Amino acid sequence: MHPLVQLLPASAVDDPDVLAAYRHDRASFCPSGTPAVLVRARSTEEVSTALRWAHEHGVPVVPQGARTGLSGAANALDGCVLLCLEKMDEIVEIDVAEQLAVVRPGVLNGRLAAAVAEQGLYYPPDPGSMEISTIGGNVATNAGGMCCVKYGVTGDFVRGLEVVLADGRVMRTGRRTAKGVAGYDLTSLFVGSEGTLGVITEVTLALRPATRRPLTAVAFFPGPADACRAVAAYLGEGHRPSVLEFMDAETVRAVSALVELGFPPDVGGVLIAQSDAGAAAAEELAAFERAALDCKAGEVVVADDPAEGELLMQARRLVGPAHEALGTSLVDDVCVPRGRLADLVDGLDEIAAEHGVRITCAGHAGDGNMHPSVIFDDKDPAQVEAAQAAFAAVMDLGLRLGGTITGEHGVGVLKRDWLARELDEAALWTHRRLKESLDPRGILNPGRVFTRTVGGGG
Amino acid sequence: MHPLVQLLPASAVDDPDVLAAYRHDRASFCPSGTPAVLVRARSTEEVSTALRWAHEHGVPVVPQGARTGLSGAANALDGCVLLCLEKMDEIVEIDVAEQLAVVRPGVLNGRLAAAVAEQGLYYPPDPGSMEISTIGGNVATNAGGMCCVKYGVTGDFVRGLEVVLADGRVMRTGRRTAKGVAGYDLTSLFVGSEGTLGVITEVTLALRPATRRPLTAVAFFPGPADACRAVAAYLGEGHRPSVLEFMDAETVRAVSALVELGFPPDVGGVLIAQSDAGAAAAEELAAFERAALDCKAGEVVVADDPAEGELLMQARRLVGPAHEALGTSLVDDVCVPRGRLADLVDGLDEIAAEHGVRITCAGHAGDGNMHPSVIFDDKDPAQVEAAQAAFAAVMDLGLRLGGTITGEHGVGVLKRDWLARELDEAALWTHRRLKESLDPRGILNPGRVFTRTVGGGG
Repeated sequence: MHPLVQLLPASAVDDPDVLAAYRHDRASFCPSGTPAVLVRARSTEEVSTALRWAHEHGVPVVPQGARTGLSGAANALDGCVLLCLEKMDEIVEIDVAEQLAVVRPGVLNGRLAAAVAEQGLYYPPDPGSMEISTIGGNVATNAGGMCCVKYGVTGDFVRGLEVVLADGRVMRTGRRTAKGVAGYDLTSLFVGSEGTLGVITEVTLALRPATRRPLTAVAFFPGPADACRAVAAYLGEGHRPSVLEFMDAETVRAVSALVELGFPPDVGGVLIAQSDAGAAAAEELAAFERAALDCKAGEVVVADDPAEGELLMQARRLVGPAHEALGTSLVDDVCVPRGRLADLVDGLDEIAAEHGVRITCAGHAGDGNMHPSVIFDDKDPAQVEAAQAAFAAVMDLGLRLGGTITGEHGVGVLKRDWLARELDEAALWTHRRLKESLDPRGILNPGRVFTRTVGGGG
Repeated sequence: MHPLVQLLPASAVDDPDVLAAYRHDRASFCPSGTPAVLVRARSTEEVSTALRWAHEHGVPVVPQGARTGLSGAANALDGCVLLCLEKMDEIVEIDVAEQLAVVRPGVLNGRLAAAVAEQGLYYPPDPGSMEISTIGGNVATNAGGMCCVKYGVTGDFVRGLEVVLADGRVMRTGRRTAKGVAGYDLTSLFVGSEGTLGVITEVTLALRPATRRPLTAVAFFPGPADACRAVAAYLGEGHRPSVLEFMDAETVRAVSALVELGFPPDVGGVLIAQSDAGAAAAEELAAFERAALDCKAGEVVVADDPAEGELLMQARRLVGPAHEALGTSLVDDVCVPRGRLADLVDGLDEIAAEHGVRITCAGHAGDGNMHPSVIFDDKDPAQVEAAQAAFAAVMDLGLRLGGTITGEHGVGVLKRDWLARELDEAALWTHRRLKESLDPRGILNPGRVFTRTVGGGG
């Protein structure tokens, strides 16, 4: 029996059949090892006990939420403690007057969003996985979503954390107040750190007042680059839509196979825009229509009927399942300046041709954050190799366009080697020093985000 | 001749008369030592040279902008290198299409705000010092201002930094894109670190589209706690004013000595509200009026004339000079949940009575961030002692109300001992570990924010 099963009999298991179900997240091509034990922690104390034991024995710990991530950061390592937070799923408090919520990490994003909506409040961050991903995982990856173009990402809503450090000590960061500058911004350091610095056991989140019912518009373009140019032109004029999403032709076809969209048959690129600006929403979408028509849109439709708007949003949310239906897909997550989006989609065509693969593309165009998906047959080794090469070429293109290798999915295992391409030597050195300072034995999700090989001065 | 004068003859001076002018910021009761040399750096390379030398020789370095801070963080230490960034004052780039600016640290906040406004853009963070404080200093302290209630603080607008590390190496953090999660959020770690982790030599800032001309309203209350209750009630209903500022009776009297306000003579507390919500602004201020009247406001005036609105804002901006005219003042900066603001101002009366001092209060009530000022005669040792005791009692009250000791001014020297009251043991340990990891020789602004005495495990 694993020692943690003795220490935490109600929460720890070492049955291989149970362990197998917790071995990996939703990333492609990321190895997952064989864990020694699974702890489904029910309290901060249990997390602390597990970490104290692991720290003492130098055993790696892989924290995980609902394993919906796309970069392999939650995959098991051989002999590790899988520390799953999904059972810590209490909404501790919703404070309507102060517009904040305190939640445990295992609360599903969609459940929190619904709970605060019932009280007239709004929790904006809405990753595609929102119905199945946890707030803890959202915080650990600094998850984005469709709302970010107007409201920001998960980290923008995190006011404070309870974190269990590598050695099992419990720390509070941040505050409940609207502002605060007492000491370093430890909260932001843990947001997006993908389980490598500590384990998040409570989150204090800022909320917003509920927004007005949005108006929705859809624009149809002859080609994807036209749509991208419309994004840059529209936002460059100073408009603040609450949603601005892109789908290419292949994505539209794939989604149409799941739901009847009634889109024109020969469309080359689609933008979906929403505005929740109340009285100004119609004006904001009129400006969208003008920008789209200036960029060769053949048609722009403003949905009069909220149900029609909801259908468009549903279509966008079906992109993931639609791509999955096309074959195995390797989903990228580059983010570029909006003015370079057209160059990005043009470059995808070249990469697809060069590597002999299919690449579809959809994404949060308003933020410059695109999800090109390489679609391939994972039974064919040549295609697998070509897909991986194309995936790398997309990241390379994103960097050359002044962008980043990951806008919202995180680095994990999938992009670890690429992080060293994006960051300079001093920034990599800083990552390693920070990691070493807070996790001197290197037990927390080791080998994720970056490797620990020490370089640089010091 | 100081060695740095030889290494950087165009920028470094060791003339004691020149040094004297750079010895301290605007904090009261913070010691300042005698610096060995002043480097008014003109480039990243010069900053790097100065740090490399200081690192090699173990000499403390105090970075400073325009020395407008209120916590002593920019004060000289004996024998230190004063590293002043005010000459690095280039606006490198304003990218209208991407809505961002790249600036050197010495650019004055007001100059940047005006420059981007000319291009139809908006840089919201507006500390009271905006005409005389630098962006570098704003970033190093994570400065706030009046806009924060709607738009957020300095850190919310910082996308990336160029930082010179303790040993002189140059590092880039962050990105130009709207989103990005490649590695740890190093940018946020340096924001608000008050010169203790590195020296900021370039800042990439997000901008917003210009807002609409605001509407302004002012409400007059019988007592300060009534005004505070109106703040909590109004914001608790979900309104998003762009300004919501408080002044107590004594502040109103002091400001009235500088400018004719025409306020009722017996007012006990004033709120100034603005809304820049365009078509919804009138509705937002009507809700403010209702909330104020419900909380015993005797009168609420909505300024029809923009000049009238500007006069009200000018009155608020004169609070600092007005308090200075009353005597020596020790300005506090506590931030509490909005629902506790009334308890805060009631508590100030008790503290003033108990310690036999005058305390005036004004602040960013919408954020719960108040600036109680202890007014005293610094020639009278008994008053000095009483003022310091009262200042401490205000922080203690802020903490007891679930708040923080500093909402926007920073810790520096003034509140260093109080940081240890606000943070738990593990958080203090984390501060020390991070500091040690990035500045192993402890040369960067040593003794500011926290002391280096090692506590806790690790």
